[in-house]
Amino acid sequence: MLQAILLTTLGITSARAADPLSSWNDGSTKQRIVEFVRSVTTAGGPHFVPVSQRIATFDNDGTLWSEQPAYFQLQFSIHRTRQLVASHPEWRNTQPFKAALANDLVALTSGNHKLFLDLTASTCGGLTVNELHAEVAAWLKSARHPRFKRPYTDLVFQPMLELLAHLKANRFKSYIVSGGDLEFMRAWATRVYGIPPERIIGSRLKTRSILRDGKPTLLRLQEFEFFNNAAGKPISIRKFIGRRPIAAFGNSDGDLQMLQWATTGTGKRLGVIVRHTDREREWSYDRKSRIGHLDKALDEAAKHKNRWAVIDMQNDWKVVYPFELAK
Amino acid sequence: MLQAILLTTLGITSARAADPLSSWNDGSTKQRIVEFVRSVTTAGGPHFVPVSQRIATFDNDGTLWSEQPAYFQLQFSIHRTRQLVASHPEWRNTQPFKAALANDLVALTSGNHKLFLDLTASTCGGLTVNELHAEVAAWLKSARHPRFKRPYTDLVFQPMLELLAHLKANRFKSYIVSGGDLEFMRAWATRVYGIPPERIIGSRLKTRSILRDGKPTLLRLQEFEFFNNAAGKPISIRKFIGRRPIAAFGNSDGDLQMLQWATTGTGKRLGVIVRHTDREREWSYDRKSRIGHLDKALDEAAKHKNRWAVIDMQNDWKVVYPFELAK
Repeated sequence: MLQAILLTTLGITSARAADPLSSWNDGSTKQRIVEFVRSVTTAGGPHFVPVSQRIATFDNDGTLWSEQPAYFQLQFSIHRTRQLVASHPEWRNTQPFKAALANDLVALTSGNHKLFLDLTASTCGGLTVNELHAEVAAWLKSARHPRFKRPYTDLVFQPMLELLAHLKANRFKSYIVSGGDLEFMRAWATRVYGIPPERIIGSRLKTRSILRDGKPTLLRLQEFEFFNNAAGKPISIRKFIGRRPIAAFGNSDGDLQMLQWATTGTGKRLGVIVRHTDREREWSYDRKSRIGHLDKALDEAAKHKNRWAVIDMQNDWKVVYPFELAK
Repeated sequence: MLQAILLTTLGITSARAADPLSSWNDGSTKQRIVEFVRSVTTAGGPHFVPVSQRIATFDNDGTLWSEQPAYFQLQFSIHRTRQLVASHPEWRNTQPFKAALANDLVALTSGNHKLFLDLTASTCGGLTVNELHAEVAAWLKSARHPRFKRPYTDLVFQPMLELLAHLKANRFKSYIVSGGDLEFMRAWATRVYGIPPERIIGSRLKTRSILRDGKPTLLRLQEFEFFNNAAGKPISIRKFIGRRPIAAFGNSDGDLQMLQWATTGTGKRLGVIVRHTDREREWSYDRKSRIGHLDKALDEAAKHKNRWAVIDMQNDWKVVYPFELAK
């Protein structure tokens, strides 16, 4: 309300143009986020943060785009398995390939996602970085999400795109800190989110520098170097960014340590959980889900309400996906 | 000359103010660098490179500051050994500590620097990131270089500081890609070079996220995760930056693969070697040196003169260190 008055005073009349988060319902969650950004960017104010330290980190799966019925990268790995099985007939009877060929998402995401990780190493490794990017680009062009019959990149969250733009307008640097494969992410996330490659952090496969046609090129090995999840997230944030974020956004217990890392620094901090509460427009799941398992982080949010906020997708978001705006 | 005329036309009269590389002697090396920057930043020109792709990578030891009589980080590790030996009496008779306590720089830098690396892991690991930063800061305050009797950070190269500033003014993003420990570098390099922590890449120790006084903190283990040298440099560049640099600067064979990686991309490229040719003002060494061994990279530079340049420190630099300007 105060903001509306101020904006009117400034001569901005269109409510839509005035509101950088127009796909968010007015309410406490939106208010918390807007107020946080305002307070850390108000020069001379008690919570002012210089531009160089305005770092925000975002999980990807379930935070910036959907992750059901299974992580989209897993869908890519299943596609790769089908693509490669002809030259690997033994895969028909060995895991994790057998589960992938049977589209057995439950098996692939059970028990700490072991089969999923093995499948990632086997099907996303063994080729150069450029080759992987080409494979991901081709898949994104042809693949369709089983429920929405749309390209997977259509299933990004419109309110989160607006939030990224709002942070950018306020001179934040937003990073993606994903459990997904670093190069899988980079193959599309810059185009879709406007986040440059140097601000995309993910899980890493071991990589070797080789000569091909006399030129150096980078070969991805079929072995993980670092799984960028849970306690791995603050470690990667320190390694890649070297500063502690003042805001972090996640949706599962895999983001708990990143949220703790961001919110336990000095000064004003914000940790936000995207809670999947919308069975109609998206999905509804949390404490009992194999995918996007959200349990401890939800308890932590309840304990530290002054620094944490929980987005209730059903109530806080006017629209979920960008394509709803075109209706 | 043409540049001087243009600048005069623009109303800039002081030659010193007009020359961003005023500590460089006029000559082909300076000309190559100035011309490279001009051509990739000339809008509409045949070699124009958009701002987002203006990435330059710099080795540190021997490229941005001196590295004799031994890498300065090794001097810090020797200091740490002396500091810690009282609580590790067994170090007096075991390597690499014995060599460190004897200040045996030859032993420590022989045979692929094995003892140096072991010493780094033992003396720069086993403490938190913040603790290491505090130790490095304290050491830099008190330690003096054996030849110049000055703080180690006084021994940065004035012409390279000017080059970093010139690239920044032309909207390049410069990264440090050092074989040195990532956090040892970050403890001082932002202040000294003006390069933010997220653009400092180095060797990494394994790190663990732990709780201390109930707050998450990052403990550096006494084990290398990645040695950021030679073939490791392009791998780290891909991992951290995700773009190929259009210019790279190094001084030894440990930079060869980074220089090849930068110069074999498409479009205009520049690879530069800082050659230590100045026994009077700095040091003179190359093909036979244990430290800053420069052999294959020098041959490569001779083969690809259109894309590589070699700085002859004695002839190309008017001054070496910033403190010479104050004389």
